[in-house]
Amino acid sequence: MTVAPNTGSRMAFIGLGEMGKAMTRNLHRDGNLTSPLTLWNRTKSTADAHSADLGDCKVAETVQEAVESADIIWSCLQDQSAVEQVFDSIFAADVNITGKLFVDSSTIAPEWSNATAKRVIEAGGEFVSMPVMGEPVVAAAKKLICIPSGKPESVDRIRPYLEGVVCRAIVDLSGEEPGTSSLLKLMGNFLIMTTMETVAEVNVFADKSGIGTKNMNKLMGAMFPNPPHAIYNHRMLTGEYYEGTPIVEVYKALALTGQVLDMAKSCGASVPIYEVAREHLKLVQEHEGSKADITGIYGAVRVKSGLPYRNGAAEGSSNEK
Amino acid sequence: MTVAPNTGSRMAFIGLGEMGKAMTRNLHRDGNLTSPLTLWNRTKSTADAHSADLGDCKVAETVQEAVESADIIWSCLQDQSAVEQVFDSIFAADVNITGKLFVDSSTIAPEWSNATAKRVIEAGGEFVSMPVMGEPVVAAAKKLICIPSGKPESVDRIRPYLEGVVCRAIVDLSGEEPGTSSLLKLMGNFLIMTTMETVAEVNVFADKSGIGTKNMNKLMGAMFPNPPHAIYNHRMLTGEYYEGTPIVEVYKALALTGQVLDMAKSCGASVPIYEVAREHLKLVQEHEGSKADITGIYGAVRVKSGLPYRNGAAEGSSNEK
Repeated sequence: MTVAPNTGSRMAFIGLGEMGKAMTRNLHRDGNLTSPLTLWNRTKSTADAHSADLGDCKVAETVQEAVESADIIWSCLQDQSAVEQVFDSIFAADVNITGKLFVDSSTIAPEWSNATAKRVIEAGGEFVSMPVMGEPVVAAAKKLICIPSGKPESVDRIRPYLEGVVCRAIVDLSGEEPGTSSLLKLMGNFLIMTTMETVAEVNVFADKSGIGTKNMNKLMGAMFPNPPHAIYNHRMLTGEYYEGTPIVEVYKALALTGQVLDMAKSCGASVPIYEVAREHLKLVQEHEGSKADITGIYGAVRVKSGLPYRNGAAEGSSNEK
Repeated sequence: MTVAPNTGSRMAFIGLGEMGKAMTRNLHRDGNLTSPLTLWNRTKSTADAHSADLGDCKVAETVQEAVESADIIWSCLQDQSAVEQVFDSIFAADVNITGKLFVDSSTIAPEWSNATAKRVIEAGGEFVSMPVMGEPVVAAAKKLICIPSGKPESVDRIRPYLEGVVCRAIVDLSGEEPGTSSLLKLMGNFLIMTTMETVAEVNVFADKSGIGTKNMNKLMGAMFPNPPHAIYNHRMLTGEYYEGTPIVEVYKALALTGQVLDMAKSCGASVPIYEVAREHLKLVQEHEGSKADITGIYGAVRVKSGLPYRNGAAEGSSNEK
């Protein structure tokens, strides 16, 4: 994979959660940057530690400083309220953003993407909405899917930093208004959730029917060897769905899936299997608390099938064949 | 891909539906056979035509003749009753099957696989149950997944004709009783049906939400570029779900999914999204008749979302963006 030439833009990255860390690591290593990457994070110590880890970065004291120092400001924040706070503080500080490109990879509501784009463009800047599909482990492997939308010339400015740098594929919506990407990302979430539900149900079925999850795992590996199936299947069979760092905490997933379901209802789309998955997320939260992992859906289906929530695999005590 | 050496076995193939035709074409071309392939089909004209098409084959007049002429008898029949008829007629004719290997790639009930294996082995033969995953178009591309089970030495006899000849992967259950493969194939059907339901719902959602199936198709292509997603998605967006040759006729799918659901109920597995998919299959049959294609699930979800069953794409009259 070759790295596309870039135009020597100075880059700042806003938000260093697991996704932001993985993306900046790849950007720093393979983005062919001509000046040090500027980092900003609400908790500054996280940015300091990550900067020390990567080497040759600058840590901004304030988000305004990050914006002032860069031509491209790329954000990947936890949720919409975090994105709102960041943009509000940029506008409140009256930074000159003429010619600056803002790229946002957070998962936010379509209307909000459009409103922010308008605000940025009216102030002389450019805006690309670019949600990404993939978990942090996928981001680390440069296997994300990026979904950019906005003016074509704006999308072209970020393009050199995408394929082969942070992602494996671009779903190119350039020319569409920014909210289109946000909406498509919600469709991606639909696919994620129903895939997870599928993997959960079939593994429970395999267990209950006597064929066992080990044999099932062979078939899964042959039919669906790639993420996201492979990631969910692994977490379920190894017990990581109740032990270890969550991919996404269930309370966040409940908020997002609630938003998606509201949208489905308001437009009249029948989405019964997504509703099933969301009901199982509620069970996960009831059973293991709001910080439990989203793949706990497997535990929920186990409980509904008369099995214990935990399969014992994380403790090495699984009886499954 | 290299073709494994075989042992010069004489091969007969029983059942020339779309799957059997695709598999024998690959076997004939790349199976490194040392003697002409023997073909048998209930409707002999089909075997004659296929033989003429392939060249250098023998067409057996009776199934007994096919069995007598071969060391390995590979069957791929439409359903369990067809398999029962074939084996009943073999046993009724009192053919000497000592040392002969029977490989069955039909989709049949686990108990029946085990019972047939017992009957064959008691008569001095060998039996491998080897259902396959994949549609005829996948079979044609040698991309099937084969799931063999039975005695390891029996599985080894068919192995040279699998990877790189008819399939891309083996889910190896050798050493397990033959019914295990049949059971795992039913789990595979679970994955097929819930994947189809997922692709149907998300496309309807994309349509209703205004993002459109064209944009959705870009995301689908990036996230799930391979079969089975790619096949179902294509049939739905092009209108092939109501025009053209069915992959599987809905009445057959209803029979099979009914069998799977009975099994889930009897073992206590909670499979709500599979139940949703089956309800949609019923709607397909009500709407378009028993010969409609299984991917008509898309039409069913459209109807439940207030859209016409047919999307108009096959007539080029789609209004979807």
